[in-house]
Amino acid sequence: MTFAQVIDAKAVELGQHILSMTTAAGSGHPSSALSILHIVLTLMRRLMRFDPADPWNPAADRLVLSEGHAVPAVYAVYADLGGVVGSDHASAKPLRIEDLASLRELSSPLDGHPNPAEGFPFFDAATGSLGQGLSVGAGLACAARLRKLDRRIFVLIGDGEAREGQIWEAADFIVDHRLTNVSAIFNCNGQGQADYVSPQQSADALARKLAAFGWEVRPVDGHDAEQIESALSTTSDRPIAVVARTQKGWGVDLLKDKSNHGKPLTSEQLPVGAQQLAATAAQRRVPTRADDAPRPRMPARVAMPARSLPEPAPFGVAMKDAGLAGAIAKNACATRRAYGAALVALGRADERIIAFDGDVSNSTFAEMFAAKFPERFFECKIAEQNMISAAAGAAAAGLIPFASSFAKFIARAYDQIEMAQITRANVKIVGSHAGISLAADGPSQMSLHDVAYFRSASESDAGRGIPACVSFHPADAVAAYHCTWLMARHPGMCYMRTHRPDVALLYPPDARFEIGGSHTLLGGRGGEPVAIVSAGYMVHVCKQAAEQLASQGIHCTLIDAYSFPLRAEPILAAAERGGRRILVVEDNYVGGLASAIAEAAAMRGAIHVHSMTCRRIPKSARTPAEILRACGLSPEDIAAGAMKLIHEPH
Amino acid sequence: MTFAQVIDAKAVELGQHILSMTTAAGSGHPSSALSILHIVLTLMRRLMRFDPADPWNPAADRLVLSEGHAVPAVYAVYADLGGVVGSDHASAKPLRIEDLASLRELSSPLDGHPNPAEGFPFFDAATGSLGQGLSVGAGLACAARLRKLDRRIFVLIGDGEAREGQIWEAADFIVDHRLTNVSAIFNCNGQGQADYVSPQQSADALARKLAAFGWEVRPVDGHDAEQIESALSTTSDRPIAVVARTQKGWGVDLLKDKSNHGKPLTSEQLPVGAQQLAATAAQRRVPTRADDAPRPRMPARVAMPARSLPEPAPFGVAMKDAGLAGAIAKNACATRRAYGAALVALGRADERIIAFDGDVSNSTFAEMFAAKFPERFFECKIAEQNMISAAAGAAAAGLIPFASSFAKFIARAYDQIEMAQITRANVKIVGSHAGISLAADGPSQMSLHDVAYFRSASESDAGRGIPACVSFHPADAVAAYHCTWLMARHPGMCYMRTHRPDVALLYPPDARFEIGGSHTLLGGRGGEPVAIVSAGYMVHVCKQAAEQLASQGIHCTLIDAYSFPLRAEPILAAAERGGRRILVVEDNYVGGLASAIAEAAAMRGAIHVHSMTCRRIPKSARTPAEILRACGLSPEDIAAGAMKLIHEPH
Repeated sequence: MTFAQVIDAKAVELGQHILSMTTAAGSGHPSSALSILHIVLTLMRRLMRFDPADPWNPAADRLVLSEGHAVPAVYAVYADLGGVVGSDHASAKPLRIEDLASLRELSSPLDGHPNPAEGFPFFDAATGSLGQGLSVGAGLACAARLRKLDRRIFVLIGDGEAREGQIWEAADFIVDHRLTNVSAIFNCNGQGQADYVSPQQSADALARKLAAFGWEVRPVDGHDAEQIESALSTTSDRPIAVVARTQKGWGVDLLKDKSNHGKPLTSEQLPVGAQQLAATAAQRRVPTRADDAPRPRMPARVAMPARSLPEPAPFGVAMKDAGLAGAIAKNACATRRAYGAALVALGRADERIIAFDGDVSNSTFAEMFAAKFPERFFECKIAEQNMISAAAGAAAAGLIPFASSFAKFIARAYDQIEMAQITRANVKIVGSHAGISLAADGPSQMSLHDVAYFRSASESDAGRGIPACVSFHPADAVAAYHCTWLMARHPGMCYMRTHRPDVALLYPPDARFEIGGSHTLLGGRGGEPVAIVSAGYMVHVCKQAAEQLASQGIHCTLIDAYSFPLRAEPILAAAERGGRRILVVEDNYVGGLASAIAEAAAMRGAIHVHSMTCRRIPKSARTPAEILRACGLSPEDIAAGAMKLIHEPH
Repeated sequence: MTFAQVIDAKAVELGQHILSMTTAAGSGHPSSALSILHIVLTLMRRLMRFDPADPWNPAADRLVLSEGHAVPAVYAVYADLGGVVGSDHASAKPLRIEDLASLRELSSPLDGHPNPAEGFPFFDAATGSLGQGLSVGAGLACAARLRKLDRRIFVLIGDGEAREGQIWEAADFIVDHRLTNVSAIFNCNGQGQADYVSPQQSADALARKLAAFGWEVRPVDGHDAEQIESALSTTSDRPIAVVARTQKGWGVDLLKDKSNHGKPLTSEQLPVGAQQLAATAAQRRVPTRADDAPRPRMPARVAMPARSLPEPAPFGVAMKDAGLAGAIAKNACATRRAYGAALVALGRADERIIAFDGDVSNSTFAEMFAAKFPERFFECKIAEQNMISAAAGAAAAGLIPFASSFAKFIARAYDQIEMAQITRANVKIVGSHAGISLAADGPSQMSLHDVAYFRSASESDAGRGIPACVSFHPADAVAAYHCTWLMARHPGMCYMRTHRPDVALLYPPDARFEIGGSHTLLGGRGGEPVAIVSAGYMVHVCKQAAEQLASQGIHCTLIDAYSFPLRAEPILAAAERGGRRILVVEDNYVGGLASAIAEAAAMRGAIHVHSMTCRRIPKSARTPAEILRACGLSPEDIAAGAMKLIHEPH
């Protein structure tokens, strides 16, 4: 029996399971799964060097299923190979064919779309929001090259999803970085959800585009195992793209019409579908039983020690190393610069630290890291979606990636960030030039929604006792330096928000920072009529306001609340020791710090919380002071706001 | 004097202004502006049919400057033509050459990046976050074709920004819809911000790619007006892409090195730069004075009456028209279905209503509109970024676009949404399948951050007394129907969040809804120990919880708070009439409804606000009930939460 006959026989056998598991679930995508079944079988049984009993082996070849909805095909092939599920070696147990019926159950690792975090370790990333898989594969490939691992990354992509621009960002990135260890397979079944796929995503159009992007294109019949194997068994000096013509609902007439996207057979239809699949098999003279064909050589296991990161290098030493001693001496250093210095110190401390940036490394100061560790720096150019998903891929391979751009442009990748949260990817995101203090460049470069956006994920559990995303908003270089270290040491996603302007140092070099922490900078002893709470650049503006009030004999508490999920208790306690009034000052839109504090206060006695934040769409102004004044956030405005709050009846 | 000589002379004259205005501003991008100057001059002086005294004329040709940072070139050419600035005809006044020195000032219409909303009506969209302009141009082109206007849309794009996947989404969309009235000009100066542009974005590579995407490619020297004119003066049956080789910092040696991105000359350098530009002129034998060359014929003004939308068609009539009478009779209709019915009714009421969708119109129910008004429906396929920016372009042309996808995939376009907010684009966004009630499909298809994200913009002023974004979260078909009408009638950006499951009707067909409004569904008369506040699908779950409590003799208030910016006063008042306790229940991550209410409550006496929301990353479950239980949001959980809150000491 040839291997192709084995694949054909398995396709019929497992096709039946695809039909029945989706019918059992009452939802799912059997037609898409059937269209990729021969490709998945050829990959997993013939081409991929991996051990189904050890899907965690960092040396093994990987499959990224970008069109996540087609996942029943992978579940079926994996169960047939006895692949293990579970969150680690200790909890691992083989997936059995009968487990397939648990598809989409609450207790099942077989989630509706791929998700390694639910106990399906064969995958590296949650997929299902389309167009992200090729970038994830690129990140895995970066990591493999850095670690000198001879592993191949196969990425299976739908034709319809090739409309997503991110696919083409990834195609560029892979060529730029010569990641020939990634191979893409485009599943051209010609059907989308609402209609046929556009001619712009036909097999021919995709082949033309991929060639123009510098890929080596190999067209195949996607239900012919020999053609698939032949196209993928040799590599090239260019990345390989296989353009596979397939049939949606392969083998089952009931599922072939374009109206069947995402529709399982009813229990009444199931026997008819099964019969149609059997008839297809008979017509194609598929052997009724598959022999056990030999699988590719298993790669030797590579050890990947989960070391802890050391304690932070001293601030002064790291700043000097980064050429920033002068900035410290002048007491004027932007938080974004301190980020660069911290990244260099981290790079020296641990070789797993890598960095991605999108053509703004001389603004985010990732360039400092790039200069010291060029092989660990990945220039993504102006393509933020690919950057975030590639970072998630690299994290899946055990690295600790930092990805930076302007905070505004990080918004380009919020969907990718959400997918990385679902994956529980250990990705560190840094957004610079945030808030209205950017001034002259105007609102297209300011980030104003980000505080609310990232806080939203900070109070949702990702398992292991950590939130879906931790965030930091440091007010000075010392804080930014130590927060960068906190990010690296925290085993999950983090976001840090930095600012453009140089600011004074507020903290001694060895100040301590922690997730959810805050620091009292002024007052707090008791009796202060109001506690002003802020973060980032605005702490400096609030300090000016507090100094103006102090000169009138009114001494406020000033608290720097630099991290979410915020522990609000110390802030409420400080307010209770004084006038039970809190003024929260932010340079972003609502939903951030004031919301966090108000939510906590609203469960307590009567603490009055008042929010001053950016309540208009900003525009350009030549200086931060001007735009702050225009937005009602100047020191004078804040001082007046504090006075008003103090005199409000309680 | 040939027109090309005029352009050459103007380039030198206005180049001097570009140098001096950016030096005056102390920031800006003179090197990028100089690279596009001949292209902009050829467009604005030779090719574009527009009247500088009437930039609002809907018949005029348009320029979208996708690489917004290069805008000083456009400001200079526009001032030289005496183009008017201001927010409308009444306030219009010509921009003078001396006004150029106000670049980036707080009171200037010459914002750091293009923004029509600041009084520069020559533009249709705020740009500056890269890669969005071609989509905006596509939206303008859709509108022009619908309105049968012979206007051409020119889009000027940087080579570096052509890395953004959205450019290629737009390229596909333009071919799909045969929008040959759009022409793209790629400015290939070879320099990015941090480094040279990748070979993947070289002029040759871009030409190859564009050809593969089905465009007609015309390469030119971007400083040769004759070549530029010749490439753009004839159209084709395919969209035209001009690939222009240019010099960053053209004419000024001080600015040519790649280290000069975004750097104006210092006041000391300015005379040197001016001298270098003069030397370039001499060397190229550019005439020292430009004649007044004739400009293209001005198009006749087309009237565009700003009609008001009528009152909503009756709910029952519209539902019947949409084939949903049965759903009403069965008392089970998903909010997303009612959206489809409302869109059809709106389409009948006003021909400005158009719709965009991303291959999920059979899920969002935009398909109902597509079936009735095929010429007003624009299928965007799986490319949400292009969809939102194209909708913004269509809005700039006076249409009222609705754009729909799964709420999760709308997150793909948050950066584009922010740019549309800055533009004050009248775009209506609808995200379906939101929240954890989606169940079986799992978290990759659920939207959980969106409530916090859109609320963030709801309390920031966009001018004209409206917020940057209004949002709606209807609980039943009646609410969804009327909220869709509210969206259409509101003159600014709106977001609506719909759900997958069928739900019972809560409201009579003629119930009234309003921006920021809420409805009391149970209790509210006084004496209720707790007010439960929710929105969307969770209102139904809360109702079950309230019924469970009522069966134990505990009668709660139940409030449906379906819109942001929320007027919290009636909710606080209801709580004060009772036990001064509010339980807020949401199926999304934090930062939404509970934040809004807690912020309001935190300025009042002691109202206790407690939030129950999705505080874990969800996974698949077969039914909404199962996933709600897993997330602690079942009716039983909510009833228990209410009991706990009632018994908490005050």
